[in-house]
Amino acid sequence: MTAFRLSMATRLRQTPFTHRVETSGVTAYSVYNHMLLPSVFRSLEEDYWHLRSAVQLWDVSAERQVEIDGPDAFPLIQLTTPRDLSRMQNDQCCYIPVVDDHGRLQNDPVLVRLGATRFRASLADSDLLLFYKGLASGLGMDVSVFEPDVSPLAVQGPLANELVRNVFGEDTVRLRYFRHRRVSVAGTNMVISRSGWSRQGGFEIYVEGSENGEPLWDLLFEAGHDLDIRAGCPNYIERISGGLLSYGNDMTDEHTPFEAGLAKFCNLETPLCLGHRALVEQQEPSRMIRPIEILGEPVPEIRDRWMVADEKGNPAGSISSTVWSPEFKTNVAIGMVDRHANLPGSRIVVHAPDGEREAVIRDAFWL
Amino acid sequence: MTAFRLSMATRLRQTPFTHRVETSGVTAYSVYNHMLLPSVFRSLEEDYWHLRSAVQLWDVSAERQVEIDGPDAFPLIQLTTPRDLSRMQNDQCCYIPVVDDHGRLQNDPVLVRLGATRFRASLADSDLLLFYKGLASGLGMDVSVFEPDVSPLAVQGPLANELVRNVFGEDTVRLRYFRHRRVSVAGTNMVISRSGWSRQGGFEIYVEGSENGEPLWDLLFEAGHDLDIRAGCPNYIERISGGLLSYGNDMTDEHTPFEAGLAKFCNLETPLCLGHRALVEQQEPSRMIRPIEILGEPVPEIRDRWMVADEKGNPAGSISSTVWSPEFKTNVAIGMVDRHANLPGSRIVVHAPDGEREAVIRDAFWL
Repeated sequence: MTAFRLSMATRLRQTPFTHRVETSGVTAYSVYNHMLLPSVFRSLEEDYWHLRSAVQLWDVSAERQVEIDGPDAFPLIQLTTPRDLSRMQNDQCCYIPVVDDHGRLQNDPVLVRLGATRFRASLADSDLLLFYKGLASGLGMDVSVFEPDVSPLAVQGPLANELVRNVFGEDTVRLRYFRHRRVSVAGTNMVISRSGWSRQGGFEIYVEGSENGEPLWDLLFEAGHDLDIRAGCPNYIERISGGLLSYGNDMTDEHTPFEAGLAKFCNLETPLCLGHRALVEQQEPSRMIRPIEILGEPVPEIRDRWMVADEKGNPAGSISSTVWSPEFKTNVAIGMVDRHANLPGSRIVVHAPDGEREAVIRDAFWL
Repeated sequence: MTAFRLSMATRLRQTPFTHRVETSGVTAYSVYNHMLLPSVFRSLEEDYWHLRSAVQLWDVSAERQVEIDGPDAFPLIQLTTPRDLSRMQNDQCCYIPVVDDHGRLQNDPVLVRLGATRFRASLADSDLLLFYKGLASGLGMDVSVFEPDVSPLAVQGPLANELVRNVFGEDTVRLRYFRHRRVSVAGTNMVISRSGWSRQGGFEIYVEGSENGEPLWDLLFEAGHDLDIRAGCPNYIERISGGLLSYGNDMTDEHTPFEAGLAKFCNLETPLCLGHRALVEQQEPSRMIRPIEILGEPVPEIRDRWMVADEKGNPAGSISSTVWSPEFKTNVAIGMVDRHANLPGSRIVVHAPDGEREAVIRDAFWL
């Protein structure tokens, strides 16, 4: 694996936690929504085992926030997603596939409802703010769309409950999955939800005001001392093993929610969104995202989609994410595979940079 | 300067030239529009001197293309920019500040007109595709907006004319600045324009079809052998010395075109764009982009805006880009400085990470 340096510039925005992240020993970054997203501290593998056993603080500020306020906030958001949001509560978070007129995915944020006419979306890696702005402007909607000074900080791992109990108290630990509440610590207000981009459990804290980032980081680190708390980040091994899809990697604006396995978030009984008509026609996708095991030695680093073929050697899709799992002793992978070759148990051939690899479609992810 | 590795993933898209770029020795990347943008080959300084004296091939595929086709293509584009495009010719390129309803910059692409109802925009670093999509959808416009399989490759440097003459002939060398023509080489069609993100002169080739990238790269390298051709990239030293503004660095969606010194691209006699009313009120900005010389030793790497103060110690703006120039033996810089402190010759104090620095507002950039 050749290592390339990331050239820094103000355009690749730092976060309120960047100084702490670097003091904590980050060694590699990704760039996500024009912002630095930590990707490795000690090593992917060492970070993985720690995440599976203790508690980590993650600087996920790069899940940039878009706030949508005003009388037309709800109609604007509903217009962009096939998920029926009519019963969304004021203390609820919802994962929403966002589609364009053609039913193609533009992002898949977690939407946080803060009130009847006030929402925040935690974005995947595309400037969805521009889509909302364009639509609202074109439709002359009475709504304000902007990026607030809010930065998500995740607390993830099996000991997350203990840490959060120590700092925020029992009421916060009792939060149900994808519910949030407003808390105050040392005079600072923030929203905290039970959510996060791992299968290890935990919380996301939406820190309001960049100047409050470092004090909160320090307070959590102090409170987690006996829990072996460490700085961490979304872990590539853990998220593939757990089947957490990544917009831009596993699905892009070329794919429909059905291809991405997101049918359960598509309510097509009545026309809710711009892409309704297109989605109605796309319900039987010719390809779908699948958990895939790539057999043999550890795969090399994946940098672009690896083509796959069916048993007869015909093109059958591609692999988008894969890595060696030290826990499952195999290569865990996510791919988009054509219908005729994507049933669990099907054998496919992966054209990896180091040669052809045998692989098997699985019926479920590992975690 | 601490070096961080860039973690690769399919989400950080490779370009049709990535393999060639890496064979040519790229050592650092930036990420731009979710794509790899080479940023250093040998060293910033060595790359700089070569760019000033010979010819380089630049993989600037990260200037992602948005194609806008159809009866409403022109009205859609005009709605997003205060620059009057009514006289734009079919062989012309235009630099267009794009603004939202509030007159704030969302991008500053180069727009290439390919026909009466067909345009392509070469984007700076934001997903402007989503703004066009949202607006077109909200307004029910008859237009198609998509990313074509087109990748810009720049030929830059004082010997660019010679290289282009060898490969494309005299008619192409006669192109005027910001004009383009369609050429064909080895059976491949492409659009070539006299343009590029340096002050050294040159061309940009819009390569149609990813599969045509490597053959064209090889052909140009072969033809440039006697011209000391090298792989290069937009050079941080050259672009600051030359006053080439970078969206995301020097101006963001918090700034107006007037603050960014782009008044000459704002035609406000009649309402052309969404932001018209806001722009009319913003014509006398309280701060503006300026060329700045930071005195003393070479500055450290800039990673976020450095605050500046006036001679009395009051806040007066910030520096967004700066680097040591080996040619001018000083630190060249770009900053946004408050009106009361931004006249040429004014002294300001820069709060750099290594301490306070004296600096002077200049009346012009260096190149």
